[in-house]
Amino acid sequence: MSKKLSLKIRRLGIDTYQETVVYMRRDCLVCQSEGFESQTRIRLTVHNTSIIATLNIVTSDILQIGEVGLSESAWELLNASEGDEAYFSHPRPLNSLSEVRRKIYGHQLEPKAIDDIIADVVERRYSDIHIAAFLAASAGGRLDRDEILALTSSMIKHGDRLHWDAPLIVDKHCVGGLPGNRTSLIVVPIVASFGLMIPKTSSRAITSPAGTADTMEVLAPVALTLDQMRHVVEKEGGCIAWGGSVSLSPADDQLIRVERALDLDSEGQLIASVLSKKIAAGSTHVLIDLPVGETAKVRSLEMARILEHYLIQIGAELGIHVHTLITDGSQPVGRGIGPALEAKDVIAVLQNNKEAPTDLRERALQLAAGIIEFSPTVERGKGFSIAKEILDSGKAWKKFQAICSAQGGMREIGSAPHQHVVSADKSGKVKAIDNRVIARIARTAGAPQAKTAGVYLSTVIGDHVKKNQPLFTIHAESEGEMEYALTLMCEEAPVIQIEDQ
Amino acid sequence: MSKKLSLKIRRLGIDTYQETVVYMRRDCLVCQSEGFESQTRIRLTVHNTSIIATLNIVTSDILQIGEVGLSESAWELLNASEGDEAYFSHPRPLNSLSEVRRKIYGHQLEPKAIDDIIADVVERRYSDIHIAAFLAASAGGRLDRDEILALTSSMIKHGDRLHWDAPLIVDKHCVGGLPGNRTSLIVVPIVASFGLMIPKTSSRAITSPAGTADTMEVLAPVALTLDQMRHVVEKEGGCIAWGGSVSLSPADDQLIRVERALDLDSEGQLIASVLSKKIAAGSTHVLIDLPVGETAKVRSLEMARILEHYLIQIGAELGIHVHTLITDGSQPVGRGIGPALEAKDVIAVLQNNKEAPTDLRERALQLAAGIIEFSPTVERGKGFSIAKEILDSGKAWKKFQAICSAQGGMREIGSAPHQHVVSADKSGKVKAIDNRVIARIARTAGAPQAKTAGVYLSTVIGDHVKKNQPLFTIHAESEGEMEYALTLMCEEAPVIQIEDQ
Repeated sequence: MSKKLSLKIRRLGIDTYQETVVYMRRDCLVCQSEGFESQTRIRLTVHNTSIIATLNIVTSDILQIGEVGLSESAWELLNASEGDEAYFSHPRPLNSLSEVRRKIYGHQLEPKAIDDIIADVVERRYSDIHIAAFLAASAGGRLDRDEILALTSSMIKHGDRLHWDAPLIVDKHCVGGLPGNRTSLIVVPIVASFGLMIPKTSSRAITSPAGTADTMEVLAPVALTLDQMRHVVEKEGGCIAWGGSVSLSPADDQLIRVERALDLDSEGQLIASVLSKKIAAGSTHVLIDLPVGETAKVRSLEMARILEHYLIQIGAELGIHVHTLITDGSQPVGRGIGPALEAKDVIAVLQNNKEAPTDLRERALQLAAGIIEFSPTVERGKGFSIAKEILDSGKAWKKFQAICSAQGGMREIGSAPHQHVVSADKSGKVKAIDNRVIARIARTAGAPQAKTAGVYLSTVIGDHVKKNQPLFTIHAESEGEMEYALTLMCEEAPVIQIEDQ
Repeated sequence: MSKKLSLKIRRLGIDTYQETVVYMRRDCLVCQSEGFESQTRIRLTVHNTSIIATLNIVTSDILQIGEVGLSESAWELLNASEGDEAYFSHPRPLNSLSEVRRKIYGHQLEPKAIDDIIADVVERRYSDIHIAAFLAASAGGRLDRDEILALTSSMIKHGDRLHWDAPLIVDKHCVGGLPGNRTSLIVVPIVASFGLMIPKTSSRAITSPAGTADTMEVLAPVALTLDQMRHVVEKEGGCIAWGGSVSLSPADDQLIRVERALDLDSEGQLIASVLSKKIAAGSTHVLIDLPVGETAKVRSLEMARILEHYLIQIGAELGIHVHTLITDGSQPVGRGIGPALEAKDVIAVLQNNKEAPTDLRERALQLAAGIIEFSPTVERGKGFSIAKEILDSGKAWKKFQAICSAQGGMREIGSAPHQHVVSADKSGKVKAIDNRVIARIARTAGAPQAKTAGVYLSTVIGDHVKKNQPLFTIHAESEGEMEYALTLMCEEAPVIQIEDQ
């Protein structure tokens, strides 16, 4: 395929997020001989590495004749040097796309078909358009049990898999949607203090103002390599690392990236995402927290039961023991929403500070109790008092500091330069807090990219407030983001409902 | 929102196809104050025009400090000059996306919801990821009658609408999938000769090697403005113009662009696309050809009946008379597949050339007959002989030349520099021809962008062929494309099945 025609690669310094893009002059010989047009997917090979990328045709002089430009994501995948020779060809037709079309048309997919799709996603052969279509066709209950099982297996297969030298490897996960629910940072040190091995990997925020990895990153490095993570766990019995950097489920990372742009959570995708990461991380026993509330991710007990059923069943088929806990998801947990503000709450609980949010403390103890009871030496019902003793005695706080230090050193929590207090417009009782709107305000204020941005609540459901009493504070790192968060707030229904008395 | 911060616009000359992209330096004040990150959708205003675009962050010197780069599509929408001041803000959240999510979850959408989605698509507020999700969620029979009606109305509302000074405005459409089926170029001159007004607008190829507009463009200009089109129709009674340049259904153009990348045809989308364009073009009576065949777009009589039902019903509700014709779609029509090769067949039929493909001639006469019978002065069953007389007498050929000349002048048909003959590997009877594979070979050979590329068939189903007798010829404009088409052909099941005798 015109093997003699090549172009010299040039890092154009354009960040297209993760989609791979190459830039080529319209008048170059490669375009002419291969018949490439804008939007074509092309295969580009440098030395022995090939990638598939979307082509953007360039008609200006940002490229010289004989050059091909690479986006940052394409540059990283190629791992080559400026000026190396690149060769081009048409990629083979993506046969797995016909399986995506079959799913769009409502057919059940065979495990082989799902694996072909996931293999192509991992190899970056899918454009964002292709991934979006697969996600939309799979959401809304359109993946059955066998398909979710196949999706989970396939995600595990196409990623790294960890092995630990212990008979019992425990883990926890929360099916998000509850702002501020940062229990992992408290549960991990309690459980590790007790003596169970808990190599926790967490995700960054998908559609929320902070993921566990975002919050932990305020306090310590989380982008650990596999070796670093192993070292931390061997030393301290637990870690809180970002899952993305150990590549446990690279397919899931690609899917989540597009889900984020769609603000979509698909339940089949969710189950496969959770289980694949836990299994790849080498867990044998996993506790999954399912908060249910009108404005949480899981809105009804019925949906929680469906998720519970699939998580336990599919987990068992793949050889892990899953225990679920359906919890109250009616309001945010703790006071802070956003990475740094949530980290403050966590530290207050670990330090047994009087002002620490009791709801966060209680939830963390309940979850730690469930995990401690995975231990064959602990009787059912005894977990809670064990967990409480570890927290109250300060052992958990010591363990947390040790973990941070093993991960690369504990950091100070910063605070945002722009703060705006929102007060009650009347006196009364706090009746409801809208999780989704609170989360959107925190996001538009800059969280999670801006670490110190977010919302800090001064009140909870059931509180009696007076007119002009502060309800919450918006934190932002830039003026523009603060202004945008305020505009959004004014356009929405009341974030906090106050009932006259 | 930081109203004082602006950047000077610069046309970066990057063709991102139709998605609007802006490029900004990471270290510029706008990025810092607004908290923009790669992949953020941002609003950019120059003078009084605002557009929404996807942000790519630039870390190199292809942009100077104080500049913002624009993709070609963003540049065209803004209609401004190099160096003009641009102001930036966060766009409002796209509320209609929650309706897309409702559709993904299987809910029926209200007309208002569908109209909100279409309005946002037309205003380019949707990224390709959003459009792909909407298409995937709407395909596979997931739009009901009311939703298709609402989608059609909305597409008409958000585009231009033509009005003609005649009581009867006729039109035809073919629900594609049949390579070489270029009847419009024969039907329009016959019907216009007869005296009915037929202002035909056609599309370019979506997933096929040529659309009617692509083939007509080989013979005459098709990118007519509304005024030019009106002039041609007033003078000659008919035209064959590209629908995209008159903006009859700009929403549909955006949707089709993403459908192309997905190689997807959604039936609700298809019905809305066909009807909205015909109604916007001012038609009162439309004949729709539905070819059915195992490898055509409509694969079963059952699906053809469903489409027929919706087209007639929804057409009636929107005030036009729709007549459908279910035809044989088992093999390509004519001999040529690809713009120039199909144009050759058309000219042969119009000139009553002995070698002209009889199947193309028969189909065109049948369709012209159906349209002529829309005339209140023609008895049912008399249309065919009227159409045949007009074609045989040479009147249709004269009319076609006159239309080409009114559209800007008739062109010569070119031929491809690279040709490769594929011969029979054994003797026998031609049993089947795979439309889809033939179409893919023609596309990979470069059609429709490369006008002279495609496939020319030397045989039809039922022919007896001898070993080494030519079956078809692949035409390509570049060596790379020819090589790719040959590679694809070798990997596929036999394109033409020959039965031993």
